[in-house]
Amino acid sequence: MGDLETQVLSIEPLAEKEAVWTKLVKITYRDPNGTARTWESAERRSRPKDSDIDGVGIVAILEKDGGPEILLQKQYRPPVDKLTIEVPAGLIDEGETPEEAAVRELKEETGYVGKVTETTPIMFNDPGFCNTNLRMVHVTIDMSLPENKNPVPQLEDNEFIECFTLPIATLWKDLERLEAEGYAIDARIGTLAEGIEIAKQFKLS
Amino acid sequence: MGDLETQVLSIEPLAEKEAVWTKLVKITYRDPNGTARTWESAERRSRPKDSDIDGVGIVAILEKDGGPEILLQKQYRPPVDKLTIEVPAGLIDEGETPEEAAVRELKEETGYVGKVTETTPIMFNDPGFCNTNLRMVHVTIDMSLPENKNPVPQLEDNEFIECFTLPIATLWKDLERLEAEGYAIDARIGTLAEGIEIAKQFKLS
Repeated sequence: MGDLETQVLSIEPLAEKEAVWTKLVKITYRDPNGTARTWESAERRSRPKDSDIDGVGIVAILEKDGGPEILLQKQYRPPVDKLTIEVPAGLIDEGETPEEAAVRELKEETGYVGKVTETTPIMFNDPGFCNTNLRMVHVTIDMSLPENKNPVPQLEDNEFIECFTLPIATLWKDLERLEAEGYAIDARIGTLAEGIEIAKQFKLS
Repeated sequence: MGDLETQVLSIEPLAEKEAVWTKLVKITYRDPNGTARTWESAERRSRPKDSDIDGVGIVAILEKDGGPEILLQKQYRPPVDKLTIEVPAGLIDEGETPEEAAVRELKEETGYVGKVTETTPIMFNDPGFCNTNLRMVHVTIDMSLPENKNPVPQLEDNEFIECFTLPIATLWKDLERLEAEGYAIDARIGTLAEGIEIAKQFKLS
């Protein structure tokens, strides 16, 4: 993990008027019995006004000779202070469709040119705590295209990302191994791997 | 959805000193190039000091004559102002193991008595935005036990939850249908269903 070494210098409370990317809100609502109650919720400030999602996650499976592999990233995430294993992902820009955001983020973060095959329902990341959400966009990456021979990411100054792939047949065991090595596991790739194991267990193919 | 009808009365900014359950923090860190940077992060205030997770999600599969079905919930979630389709879940209490929390929450929220078979790595819900996390705990529910014949949830005053099951073979299509009917889909069950579809697509069983 040497190339992505980082260090937390301080953690301090963030006042509402200083926050640029995040906010807390107090929601007052009438419950099913007619009682007024309150709930605290965290939100991003970056969701475009014309969008019902914050971002996209990208499921890119490369069909290799040894079997299908999924494209993943190692990225330092300050909130968890660890290198995190994630699918490529990103926030949506104003006026962008989920599919456009996915193709753009895939190119920026991994260098690959992908073609969208499917977009999922909206998924909420932690709906008891926050309103953040995404759609998963499935893309195929045609490895025979010249632009996919030597993909070069175009990362921003504050992005430190390493791409790699894992065989989907052994994804669950590989994630367990990566956690044991000190990486954090993002819930999207974790529960996707869990679903693969459940399908195997009940022979759903 | 009549039985769980709710109404948002107001949404207002939440000042840091008023927040009981949530907080925002500013993290200053040194990036891999040695540059000091800041990042905003949302956190729960409820994580016990002795715990490395906020809560647990519960994967409970009932083996029925027609095939395996997964136990799910419809629950109103103020942050997304929708009834949300989720796996049973809950926050961990001080001194509790993930497995104890899962058995307790399953009993409280669904009435079922379960037995733990597996606990997953820690999964981070949205690691670019917050530090909230959980472990998924897999349980079996022995339907031949007398206490599982007529399970009765023990809900708190502010909990409004309806339990139901879906066949895991058709989970993905059922979630797409439920979204079309107006429900929100939690990312855990959404990406788990996505994993099942990927296993089918690549015949991984």
